[in-house]
Order: sequence, then C-alpha cells, then structure tokens
Amino acid sequence: MKHHSTLKVALVQQAIGKNKKDTLKKTTQMIEKASNQGAQLVVLQELHQDRYFCINENTANFDLASDFEEDVKFWSHVAKEHKVVLVTSLFEKRSAGLYHNTAVVFEKDGSVAGKYRKMHIPDDPGFYEKFYFTPGDLGYEPISTSVGKLGLLVCWDQWYPEAARLMALKGAEMLIYPTAIGWFDEDAEDEKKRQCDAWETVQRGHAIANGLPVISVNRVGKEMDDFGHLDGIRFWGNSFVAGPQGEIIVRASHDKEEILLVDVDLKRCEDVRRIWPFLRDRRIETYKGLTKRFID
Amino acid sequence: MKHHSTLKVALVQQAIGKNKKDTLKKTTQMIEKASNQGAQLVVLQELHQDRYFCINENTANFDLASDFEEDVKFWSHVAKEHKVVLVTSLFEKRSAGLYHNTAVVFEKDGSVAGKYRKMHIPDDPGFYEKFYFTPGDLGYEPISTSVGKLGLLVCWDQWYPEAARLMALKGAEMLIYPTAIGWFDEDAEDEKKRQCDAWETVQRGHAIANGLPVISVNRVGKEMDDFGHLDGIRFWGNSFVAGPQGEIIVRASHDKEEILLVDVDLKRCEDVRRIWPFLRDRRIETYKGLTKRFID
Repeated sequence: MKHHSTLKVALVQQAIGKNKKDTLKKTTQMIEKASNQGAQLVVLQELHQDRYFCINENTANFDLASDFEEDVKFWSHVAKEHKVVLVTSLFEKRSAGLYHNTAVVFEKDGSVAGKYRKMHIPDDPGFYEKFYFTPGDLGYEPISTSVGKLGLLVCWDQWYPEAARLMALKGAEMLIYPTAIGWFDEDAEDEKKRQCDAWETVQRGHAIANGLPVISVNRVGKEMDDFGHLDGIRFWGNSFVAGPQGEIIVRASHDKEEILLVDVDLKRCEDVRRIWPFLRDRRIETYKGLTKRFID
Repeated sequence: MKHHSTLKVALVQQAIGKNKKDTLKKTTQMIEKASNQGAQLVVLQELHQDRYFCINENTANFDLASDFEEDVKFWSHVAKEHKVVLVTSLFEKRSAGLYHNTAVVFEKDGSVAGKYRKMHIPDDPGFYEKFYFTPGDLGYEPISTSVGKLGLLVCWDQWYPEAARLMALKGAEMLIYPTAIGWFDEDAEDEKKRQCDAWETVQRGHAIANGLPVISVNRVGKEMDDFGHLDGIRFWGNSFVAGPQGEIIVRASHDKEEILLVDVDLKRCEDVRRIWPFLRDRRIETYKGLTKRFID
C-alpha cells in the first residue's frame, strides 16, 4: 500500500546582501520565483534579514531586533502576495534586555500561523548566541498550516535528538531547520568535511529515528568579524531535504545562492513507519534519565 | 590541545556455520587471530552462536537458550585464553517462559564484567523477536572494563536516540551494537540501499549527538526460513566503526566474513566535545514529554 501527498517546497539558500534593504529585495525576488514555479511552502535560512551578527558580542546589534513588528508585517505581506506558506527566521525584541531567535510562520493569506523561539542556544568562538538570545520558552509545538504540521526548529537544535523527537511525538509531519553554520578558513580540509558531514548526518538521523522528512536551509558566503578578532565565517550552504529514511532527496552547493525546489511526499512517512514502527517500541518507562543533566 | 589513547578493537563479522559447534570453532579462531594482531577489545555480532532463529516463531527454538550457563563459561574461557575484553551476544534462559537477548562482556581474565539485556524488541515479518525475548530490565548501564566504559546496546536499540543518550549520560566512552539485520531478496535495490544507509546513518547520528565512537557488528550470509513462509534473510554485513563526529573509520563488505581491526582514539571525544559541547546546552527542563508514548 502506497500513500501519496506531494508538497512542493522551496529552500532559499542565499548570501547576505549589502544591507538589510538589499537583502530583503533579493529574498523577496527568490520567493516570487519559487512561487511562480509552484512552491507551496518556502523556507528561508536562519536570521536571513541580516549578516550573522553573532560573530562577535556588540550591544549595538540589539538594534537589529527593534523592527521585529515591522518585519512580521513585511513577511506577512510577502507570504500573502505570493500565496505561499512562509518560514522566516527573525530577531525578536520582546522587552528591553530580552531577545529571542524566533522563527515566524505565515499562512498563504498572510496571517501568522505560529512561531517558534529557538530552544538550544550555542556559544562558541564566532557564534556568541548566548549573548544575544534568551532560550526559547514556547517549547516544541508543531505549527499547523494549510500544508501540514511543521516541526520547526532552529540551527543548534539540529544537534539534539530530544527536540526532533518531541516534535514527532506532538504530531509534526516534517522537521524544518533554518540554520547559519559555516567553516573557519584556517581549519583543515578533512576537519571541514567531517563538520559538514556530521551536521547533515545528525539531521538525517532525526529523519530516520522519527520517520519524517527533514528540510534544512543554510546560508552561503563569507562574512567578516568587524571587530577583527576572527578571520570571518564561511557559511557552508549544503541546504538539503531528506526523506523519512534519511535519504537525501536534494542538496545544494557549498557556495552558491540557490532556490532548491523539491516535491516532498508527506505520505511516505506512513509507509516507512509501517515497516519501521519505532514509536511502537519506545521504552518510555526507562527514559526518565533524559531529564537529567548527567547521571553520575 | 589533542588527547590520545588508542584502543585496538576487532569487529568479527561472520556467516553462521553448519551448526553451533562449527560456528563456535570458527568464531574462536577469528578471536584468536584478532588477539594475535593486537586486539584488546573483540566485539561479536548479535546472537552469534546460532542461525537467526527469530526468522519464525517456533517454541522448539527456546531450547537454544538452555545452555546459557555453559555458554558463559565457554566465552569466559575464550576471553581468558586470548586475553581480550570480549563482547558476546547470547540467548539467556532466566526461567521457564522468561528469556532475554543478552550481551555478556568478559574481562581479559575471563571474569564477567557485566551484561546488558536488549531493551527495545522488534517484531516484523522475519524478525519475530517479541515472541522470543522479554524486554530487558537492567536499564542502560555502561559496563566498566579494563579498556573503558562500554555503552553496550543491541540491534533494534540502534534506532533509538534515547538509548544512546542515556548511555552517554551515564559516562559510556563508546557505543557498541551487536546486530543482525538484513534484506529480503525481493526488495528493490533502491529500497535495500536506503535501508542499509539509514541503519548506518542513524548510528552515526548517535556518535555525533553524543560525541562518542560507535562500533557496530552485523552478520553476513543468507539464512532460510525452515517453515518456508519467507524466502529467507540476506544479512547485509556492513559492520563499521565511526568516530565521535560520525566519520566512518572502517566499514566491512556486505557479504564477506571479515575481522575489522581498527585503532579507536578514545580521547578524541574530549576534543570533539570541546568544540561541540552539546551536553552543556540540553534543555533538560523541557524534555519531560520524552517519557510519553505520544503527546496528543
């Protein structure tokens, strides 16, 4: 028995523009193009309005969150104009001194379908997100839209099987990861390969463990540290879609702006979970330790 | 800063012999060979003493568990003779009507270092394990040995990020999976590829999410269903070791008996977890739902 229900998804992988205005124009043009090619769901990369400002810690960068309400209106308009369900990734000012890395999803009529505040926040050299983002407090709630229940997570969440599993247990029909990850040019080539492979592989693992497709969108281009402490980050692109057995359906380049347009068969999840019914056999009575930091 | 501590591990991938006696002889010879080549830790495949009897449901097969005490003595002797830490996978009779799929680990002096009873039990056509095996009741306890703390899990456990995470939280220094998984010849080639890739990928995902090496040992050869309901199972081999970034260090063929001898750098975990400190950022206060069957 085969079940079919195809969703046309566009992943917008881009480099940052000269400024926000320029970037918004380019992104909007790419969304228009995707819509004209039949995309029903468009997924943008993490913090797609700006350069990746977390490359250093600068209080002035909190200004970038001040336009959150305006940003929401802008993308609402874009979603409505191009009649697509749109996944955006914005910098949210919630109060003075309280900011989130927030993904907002718009229905094709421009209404807000829901939002997700990034739960797992990284902090390592060049990725100083703990300085900017308060950890999310909305939990892992799939966002119901006209194209399905979106298990929307963001970047560092990618490394956590717990987040993917909770989305699956709440009925998500796909996992979606806007992300901003890259290399340092000074790293060895084999280390770069291991890092990008690991990033892709762990997400394919979530697809497999949960019998769900995964959509991951990353930026490209080299962005500099205006403090000059680091030699910048070269974002590695490699946006991809994997099916519910973790199989790669489409994968972008490491260095080019691209619209990846792909048909995702949402019903194959049903077939795959029939042959691999992992949810049936979870030993939930033995999982209490998962809520511990470490078991020592 | 680089940390090094190399452990020489042997993975014994084999086809089943004509009978148990023949298989034990072959396995022992492979262990001897591995030991002579310097192996400190030898890992055998799941239920390595016998054909994969779960291919059908036959009460007579419970006889195979009757020699559990003798089996333990036998492998204790082998471990001691060849001075290796030995991971075996046996069929344990605990009482009439109470059987487990039990991995027993022997120290190089032949003493029992510990055992693990398979926690997640599959049941699908040709893999009727729920008929034979009572779900394990020993939890996820790493087994302390002279070569490290072994996070020993078995086969179907491979698909569960929860099991791998719990082993990591309890201080496992590596994840080890004896396994018995294969294809049906009638499946399409692309489906076979997806299945084997998924099986490998989800385990590499556990390596990445937990910053631990993974050692996985699978059998080869086609085994028939003596009831004639199925056209047998072709075990796909592909035993492998991945490092803590999920990188494949060594991988066996799909169809040959092999001893994979590999140096595993146990201290690279320290380096990898410094650049990817995933344990630091787990949102444990948000993970309670993981102990639910489904959240509806």
